Amino acid sequence: MSTAKRYSNLDLVDRVDGFPNAATHPVAFAERTAEFARFTYLSHTIGYIIPRVRAALEDVALSGDWWEITPGAVSVKGGTVEERTANISETLKRWREAKRFDVLSGWRNEMYTIYAPQGKPCFHMERSATPLFGVLTYGSHMTVYVPASATRPLRIWVPRRAAGKSTYPSMLDNTVAGGMGDGQTPLGCIIKEAGEEASLEESYVSANVRSAGFVSYFYVREPDAGGESGLLQPEIEYVYDMAVGEPDGEGPVPVPCDGEVAEHMLLTVEEVKEQLARGRFKPNCAAVMLDFFIRHGILDAENEPDFVEIYTRLHRRMEFPTR
Amino acid sequence: MSTAKRYSNLDLVDRVDGFPNAATHPVAFAERTAEFARFTYLSHTIGYIIPRVRAALEDVALSGDWWEITPGAVSVKGGTVEERTANISETLKRWREAKRFDVLSGWRNEMYTIYAPQGKPCFHMERSATPLFGVLTYGSHMTVYVPASATRPLRIWVPRRAAGKSTYPSMLDNTVAGGMGDGQTPLGCIIKEAGEEASLEESYVSANVRSAGFVSYFYVREPDAGGESGLLQPEIEYVYDMAVGEPDGEGPVPVPCDGEVAEHMLLTVEEVKEQLARGRFKPNCAAVMLDFFIRHGILDAENEPDFVEIYTRLHRRMEFPTR
Repeated sequence: MSTAKRYSNLDLVDRVDGFPNAATHPVAFAERTAEFARFTYLSHTIGYIIPRVRAALEDVALSGDWWEITPGAVSVKGGTVEERTANISETLKRWREAKRFDVLSGWRNEMYTIYAPQGKPCFHMERSATPLFGVLTYGSHMTVYVPASATRPLRIWVPRRAAGKSTYPSMLDNTVAGGMGDGQTPLGCIIKEAGEEASLEESYVSANVRSAGFVSYFYVREPDAGGESGLLQPEIEYVYDMAVGEPDGEGPVPVPCDGEVAEHMLLTVEEVKEQLARGRFKPNCAAVMLDFFIRHGILDAENEPDFVEIYTRLHRRMEFPTR
Repeated sequence: MSTAKRYSNLDLVDRVDGFPNAATHPVAFAERTAEFARFTYLSHTIGYIIPRVRAALEDVALSGDWWEITPGAVSVKGGTVEERTANISETLKRWREAKRFDVLSGWRNEMYTIYAPQGKPCFHMERSATPLFGVLTYGSHMTVYVPASATRPLRIWVPRRAAGKSTYPSMLDNTVAGGMGDGQTPLGCIIKEAGEEASLEESYVSANVRSAGFVSYFYVREPDAGGESGLLQPEIEYVYDMAVGEPDGEGPVPVPCDGEVAEHMLLTVEEVKEQLARGRFKPNCAAVMLDFFIRHGILDAENEPDFVEIYTRLHRRMEFPTR
């Protein structure tokens, strides 16, 4: 008998959405946010800054006039997107040289857009630094599946991440997933990643992919995420489905091609549920699987006691401006 | 040229989810809830009571020992579900006899369950009275549609409500929809309503219906809802899809049978969009249509500027205990 921890579906949601909710847990929310400085743009909260990042900002403010720091709030100086972006980049350059934060050792050379109200860009920021500022970021995840037929049940293409990855090594993933960098759209992002991660042809994906909403959650980073634990990572992940044929028939077979994926497996729903219960999925990929299960009638009000809490928390309303 | 109001999809969400959100609009939320007494069970908020209902409770408290009324909170007395239910029923009986509230003239003789934490019943309450207490209620809505084929686009079966209905007369509805009374499950509710509202056979619906999540929202009642305006009606509506064949082929044809529905029409997505934009759908049925559009890839991040706000607000996290 294994004594390993078993995760309920609600446990999986708690894992990816660990930050208190202002509506349901007002006291916990107030206590938690009281520890942080708000990261503001004009009067809007665009992120949360934990004490050790605030301390690092106070240190860097000795070297340049880049930050406005008050007891409860921090904002980046600059009257334009470009100026704000430059001030952040200068700060990150110094932190990286000083090895101030482990999370910056995963430097990606990939810029993310952080938004002001009305969906206007506020500034751009190196991807690996976003959890230091608790700002909202975006990605796209696609579930490629073989629909049920008269003789075979529905199955899902599930990749195992490479053992050498710095983040969530060897964990299970969604068929295709990627962060949405500057200039990308959600659909463009998933089509590009489908080629890079799974060797799926752009024309095939464009013709067969279907948008199916998104999941949104407020993640508090665990050690598996790489870098410091406890960093704040609110995310919106656009969700896509793609139904394909049998791999021994006309269906495409995902093939690893960039070293990020060890192998792609075609798993039944029962097999995916078992891997979810063992905690083997990357936390936000578990969220996408649960959303898929709910949209496809696999989890419903009759068989999942925490149905309402799970589905509302997977569509968390963010207090930050969005794109 | 018509000068009638056109509704954006976000306008439709505003219409059904008009109550401020604690996370995104903390000041508006605090100001709005400060007007109300909290309806509490032990230390939990299970609803909100507006001033004129509170005044009516203070009046009725002169006749019997049914309510605990403090400046900021109201609770119903009684140590058991049965005692609390009886105290509420006595109160409603007096209000109804005195014609104290218009909304009670729509008396349904149908009991709804209001929940305490951990999904335990707290008490039962006549359906028409629930908006007086701002308590959370449940229903089930099903979209019956003919999937796209090589020669025809996807179409949706849309009923028009009878002109004589007291609530939302002549407005457009979801194919099948009903409130979830005591002892019903979400699936049982939709199967029963499918027979009563659309003459769809139970065995056929059981075999073909598919659970697809729910929509949740905090509705502030408009005049069309019947009874007083401004009453509070937070709801969770379980959502079901059912794909059927062509009506000139093997598909079933919904037929009105209880006088609640004037006719069933088979509309294209463009026709449904037009009726939504004209504000012709009952507000919560518009929410279910938007959710259907998002899950089916008809509305997506590329064609709907308010995609994130719409989809998160259609899955609002409630501050009340749920079933």
